Amino acid sequence: MNIDMIRAAEARIGGRLRHTPFLSSPFLDRIVGRRILVKPECLQHTGSFKYRGASAALSALSPEARARGVVAFSSGNHAQGVALAGAEQGAPVVILMPSDAPAVKIANTRALGAEVILYDRRTEDRDALGARIAGDRGLTLVRPYDDPQVIAGQGTVGLEIAAEARALGIDRAEVFVPCGGGGLTSGIALALEADAPGLTVRPCEPETHDDMRRSLLAGAIRGNENPRPSLCDAIVTPAPGNITFPLVSARAGAGLAVSDDEALKAVGEAWQRLRIVAEPGGAVALAAALYRTAETDADTIIAVVSGGNVDAAIFRRALDLVAAA
Amino acid sequence: MNIDMIRAAEARIGGRLRHTPFLSSPFLDRIVGRRILVKPECLQHTGSFKYRGASAALSALSPEARARGVVAFSSGNHAQGVALAGAEQGAPVVILMPSDAPAVKIANTRALGAEVILYDRRTEDRDALGARIAGDRGLTLVRPYDDPQVIAGQGTVGLEIAAEARALGIDRAEVFVPCGGGGLTSGIALALEADAPGLTVRPCEPETHDDMRRSLLAGAIRGNENPRPSLCDAIVTPAPGNITFPLVSARAGAGLAVSDDEALKAVGEAWQRLRIVAEPGGAVALAAALYRTAETDADTIIAVVSGGNVDAAIFRRALDLVAAA
Repeated sequence: MNIDMIRAAEARIGGRLRHTPFLSSPFLDRIVGRRILVKPECLQHTGSFKYRGASAALSALSPEARARGVVAFSSGNHAQGVALAGAEQGAPVVILMPSDAPAVKIANTRALGAEVILYDRRTEDRDALGARIAGDRGLTLVRPYDDPQVIAGQGTVGLEIAAEARALGIDRAEVFVPCGGGGLTSGIALALEADAPGLTVRPCEPETHDDMRRSLLAGAIRGNENPRPSLCDAIVTPAPGNITFPLVSARAGAGLAVSDDEALKAVGEAWQRLRIVAEPGGAVALAAALYRTAETDADTIIAVVSGGNVDAAIFRRALDLVAAA
Repeated sequence: MNIDMIRAAEARIGGRLRHTPFLSSPFLDRIVGRRILVKPECLQHTGSFKYRGASAALSALSPEARARGVVAFSSGNHAQGVALAGAEQGAPVVILMPSDAPAVKIANTRALGAEVILYDRRTEDRDALGARIAGDRGLTLVRPYDDPQVIAGQGTVGLEIAAEARALGIDRAEVFVPCGGGGLTSGIALALEADAPGLTVRPCEPETHDDMRRSLLAGAIRGNENPRPSLCDAIVTPAPGNITFPLVSARAGAGLAVSDDEALKAVGEAWQRLRIVAEPGGAVALAAALYRTAETDADTIIAVVSGGNVDAAIFRRALDLVAAA
């Protein structure tokens, strides 16, 4: 796993990507007394950065493997990213989802052209089911983060951050990244190391699932024990990946963790001050930039907003927090 | 007023502008059975295209006039655009607002560095007050639309649309533009005539204030008689401008008009499918693209979303429409 794979992914898929521009607001800068730039990946195709990794992974397959198709386990952003990438690249896509996934997510994934297979998570073994379907049809599994080509695709976010920071004359900054399994964080860290070595990645997580933060402190992978539910469902994972963790560990600064309320407040600020729609998990890095100011001394923070697929009911709660302020 | 003024504005202010990228969603395309591309000027600095015209107008002043300062009448997007442009270019800014303007708009305009002078709209003559203050201090009035330099600034949206359409290989399309006084519409029309002659502008308005649509039909300026209140307050004006109307009339296709409910539904779709925050007036062109499909036979519609400064209470109503669908 290295920078050349990210550049190769960019060469393959760059023409399909939406190059999301930095956003900013003097009102956000004033809250923290420093400069905040936001990389809005909620504006990416399918509403999250996951489309990048999925596109990169599919485009790295042999034409024969791509024609047979791919399979993914997801009820969320990864599912939609793989579905759209498959539709664009002529790869049949099978998505395995729990039968109690929200109906709208099932419908959206089907509408993007994927075959959705539902399983009962109380009685069925997801991995065994997926392995059987993949074996029967010759499908390739697209993992959500612990896969070099997926990491390479997410790393294209880092290439864009490096280029846009350079255009603005920024050579020192911290880059706050929402972190689940670490695919986005590790890809960005690799890209910045090569193209913008003065920019340091800081992984950001929900307090209830701060496995990357604790793993970095311990110097080894630590999982979440007895995790409580979190509004930040999009970035909730059991532990850093075996591929992503060493990549992050060698390159990132300390992790930061925010509460669900802070993530929700950041969703509200993003609505009011940047006019973008963020999901709570996608807003944890912006939340850390706004509310964990004592944990950084950077003059400039670049916060990635990683996704914007959020239910109306949760979004209303974020509006309440802003409107009441 | 000609294309050279738009190119000159771009040369002066291009480095400050946010170059907003086209957004799209297969779900929106499916609603109408054609391709919809959205130019999201809600992501522009201060949350609307108005910043472009204000920046262009201020940068066209002599250094002496700029140092004396500018004055504008507005309680909305124009005020914030002028305030930020003034702060950036070292021009003192006075904004006259009615004393019953929403407190948050007054506070936001002040926070951007402008001096806000309140007047009582029942007892005071706004124009006389403005003229007196301008005379006393040597301020230049920045009109919201009927000014060549303001139109030139708004025309930079058209240059960007032409360039991005060309990059996508689009040489025929209709460009739906939210239309109040016609500054944005006329600027875009001029730019497209020069750089993308296969792209035709269609002005879009609220049904309650369809003065441009009726003026185009009549071939002469027609005002709104007995206009009812509209949710689309950002683009409500008494009549097309004396400068803007002939520019639009010579270049645009027929106008379209949408109901407040349609504008609100488009705000909801923009939230769900594009993850951007639109205000109702800013969403009238997207609404026309989605709900007035019989009034165009274009294969590709480029809809400008002109602003995203919206109250939480109104935004909640848009969420209700989407969540209930």
